[in-house]
This record gives sequence, C-alpha cells and structure tokens, in this order.
Amino acid sequence: MRRIRLTVEYDGTDYAGWQRQENALAVQEVVERALARLTGEKAALTGASRTDAGVHALGQTAHFDTMSRIPAEKFSYALNTLLPGDVRISDSREVSPDFHARFSARGKRYRYQIDSAPHAGALTRKTHWHVIYPLDLALMREEAQTLLGRHDFRAFAASGSTVKDAVREIHRAEILQYGREFVFWVEGTGFLYNMVRILAGTLVGVGSGKMAPGAFARALQTGDRLCLGVTAPAHGLTLMQVYYDGDEWSGSKP
Amino acid sequence: MRRIRLTVEYDGTDYAGWQRQENALAVQEVVERALARLTGEKAALTGASRTDAGVHALGQTAHFDTMSRIPAEKFSYALNTLLPGDVRISDSREVSPDFHARFSARGKRYRYQIDSAPHAGALTRKTHWHVIYPLDLALMREEAQTLLGRHDFRAFAASGSTVKDAVREIHRAEILQYGREFVFWVEGTGFLYNMVRILAGTLVGVGSGKMAPGAFARALQTGDRLCLGVTAPAHGLTLMQVYYDGDEWSGSKP
Repeated sequence: MRRIRLTVEYDGTDYAGWQRQENALAVQEVVERALARLTGEKAALTGASRTDAGVHALGQTAHFDTMSRIPAEKFSYALNTLLPGDVRISDSREVSPDFHARFSARGKRYRYQIDSAPHAGALTRKTHWHVIYPLDLALMREEAQTLLGRHDFRAFAASGSTVKDAVREIHRAEILQYGREFVFWVEGTGFLYNMVRILAGTLVGVGSGKMAPGAFARALQTGDRLCLGVTAPAHGLTLMQVYYDGDEWSGSKP
Repeated sequence: MRRIRLTVEYDGTDYAGWQRQENALAVQEVVERALARLTGEKAALTGASRTDAGVHALGQTAHFDTMSRIPAEKFSYALNTLLPGDVRISDSREVSPDFHARFSARGKRYRYQIDSAPHAGALTRKTHWHVIYPLDLALMREEAQTLLGRHDFRAFAASGSTVKDAVREIHRAEILQYGREFVFWVEGTGFLYNMVRILAGTLVGVGSGKMAPGAFARALQTGDRLCLGVTAPAHGLTLMQVYYDGDEWSGSKP
C-alpha cells in the first residue's frame, strides 16, 4: 500500500465545492471517480481544505492510498486524461504513510481578486468580485497590516460556526493593484470558516470608505463579527497553496 | 441623429467571433439585439475589428447611429442590463458623425497569453494557449525585436488571404513572464488576418527550440509563410484596445 499526494487545480464555477455531497457535484467526487476508473479500486480522497461552492483552487492538496503499481508521478498525467478541463491534477507524488493532507498542513495561502470598475469585466466575472466603487489602496494596505501576527480570530468566522480554538497566525497580508484589479494575498497557519471572504469584504468596506479604518483592530479587541464587513462572494477566492513540513513559506521563517 | 461609440468587452468562448453571420451567434448580433430592445430602432453596429471565433476582447470598438434621446454615457449602463455576462459595454460616448470605428482606427493593441507547464491550467484553459514545453524568455524577446518598425508583412497572413498592401508598422512587441505564464503584447498600425496568432505561434516555436531563431527576419526577407510557425489557437488572443486620433499610444509618439 502506498500513499499518494495530489495537487489539485479547479475552476469552482460549476461545482458545489470540494467536499463530496448528496445532491450536487463536488470536485472530490469528480476526482474520486477518475481515480476509481484508473485503478479499479474504491477511491477515497482526503482533501486539505473544504472549499465552498464557487471557490477556486490552484493548490488544493489531497491524499489517497492505493495498491496500484502506477508510478506516483504518472497519476497526474493519467488522471488528467479522464478529468474535465475545469479540474486538473498539477502534481502527484508518493508520500510517507503518516502524511495527512489536512492534519499535516502547516499553513495555507489564499488569493482574493476584486474588479473595481463601473462595469463588471467580461473576462473576470467568474474569478473576481465586481465592486462599482473606487478603492483606496493605501487605506486597505494599512488596514491589512493589523492582521499580521498571532491573534484570536473568533470574530472572523461565519456566524454559527463553533470552533473551540480561534487562535491563528497570519504571516502575510498584502494587496496589489493592477489598474482596476485588486488582488489580496493572505498566508497563515489556518483560517476559520469564511474567514478569508470576511477579510476581503472588510477590506473593500474600508477601501471604499463605507467603513471606518480600524475595523480589524476593533474586531480583534471585541470578538464581535459586527465590527467587520460583508462576506465577500465565493467566486473571488482561490486556494493557492497548502504548506507542509519542509515547504518554504513565510510561516517557516524563524 | 447622433453617432455613439461603444467599447465592448467579451469572453469569446461561446461566440462565433465578432461579425454577425447566418448559422452561429456572433457578439455583434448580441449587442445589436440589446440595442434594438433599448432604442426601438433597427440597430446596425460597425466594429473596428472582426475578431475570430474564440478570440476575446477588452477593447473592441464599435459605432452606431441613433435618434434616441438616451444620454450617450447611459448606453453602457442600459445595455449591460440587457446583455449576458460574457459581453459588456465598458464605455459609451458621443462622437462626431465622421468617426468610423474601422476606418478611423490608427492602431491596435493585442495580448496573447500562453501557459507553459506540464499540465493545462484549470483557470486559464479558456484564455491561454497551453504548451507543454518550457520556453526561453530571452530567445523570444530577441526574436520579437525583429518585428519592430515598418515592414511588408505579406508572409504573416493566413494562406489564401489576399491583401494588396501588407505594409504595417509595429511599435511594441514585448513578452512578459509570470511563473508558468507568458504574455505577448503587440501594438501597431494594423494586423493582417491571423497575423497576431502567427506571431505567437512563431515565438513559441523559437522559444521552445523547435524553430531556429531569426524566423521573423527570414519571413520578412522571403515573404514566405513557411518560414513562420503555426497559427496559435484563437482562445489565447485578446483585442485589448483600438487607437484613434487623440489617443495616446506608442504609435502616436513622434
């Protein structure tokens, strides 16, 4: 028995998220079906992150166990011949039997894309949140700095979520601008449910002048979700990378 | 009677190109239908460029004449409420009656996007040409320099195209790299049929080592299409902008 790790890319537009479910097609199911066809085994994938419906991924990570003799690196090529174009395996490799896509993860990197213009873009409508108001880059950058470091992020989760330990560490929170496009990059040890989308919604609230600067600081202090902005739409979000022991990333710096 | 100029964006994936035709849906027809609904007039749009099936645009330009009293700047907002998400009007303004989207054009800017990686990208499959081989940026940049200036580009058109005057001037031909993504930008007074796609195909030929450097120079000298590479696929191409008198661009510099 070998354990194989897959790096999975997907355009989340037409999927009900990563996690397999009853009445809608999830990315996990699409990959498991292809795996079962390829190996003839019952396929069970464990993903690092349950991305929501509409969320994209360039670096989702998953593992499975197999008796198949297919060389580990060949799984990506073989699976891609069976998968639809909006789901791709960009890497496959053998890992030790104690590797676990979810529990071994040390950190994650997300990208949230915003299109700030009077009219939505024809080419960005499935990957960018369209906001009609102009955004102040300097205000957003200053606001984002508050996130850095180790904090109790209990205010930063979807209401109703019941996580016991909400302490997370954020190592990078940057906003880049390319004309009408704003890209928010965030990297940390972990994120609560909907947290990145709430961060993006709050940054847009502050950047558009609808919310007073200092929203993140107030939320960290009070633990109150109401200090923060809206939950930004799913389709602007992309899971870029999951970090494991040995990966170089901002959280691994001493 | 007023003449209105529209800037049109589209995701070309689901269209048979810009130009209205019998048995397939073109972008021109989609916009004309929306215009007719809006104004109650018979709508006839003239576009700057007949982009092919699958080609995208962020800066297609078109004009039409109308008796409607809708303020010129409101056309974009009103049309966008009637158009599908993959076609957007990003600007509308009144122009003088002798403005002509096609004949008044002084230059055009195109972008060709390439995804160079072992596996195609899930999020770039409709906007990037996927090539599995690595590309040499320096080689491609040097090759592109040959294009600059005023040349007879007769070798650079689709076979069977019968243009009398193939002299064009190229002002900018740059290649940028972002990880696995290569973006080719080209700007000039005009382009022959399929010319930008032939340029992209040749650059990839040279950058991948399949063609000897100097292909553009040989084609300019001999006028022979066979000196050049393949016609790159339509879906990597985007018409970015059409330039008119008064617009600032590389071709307007003295």
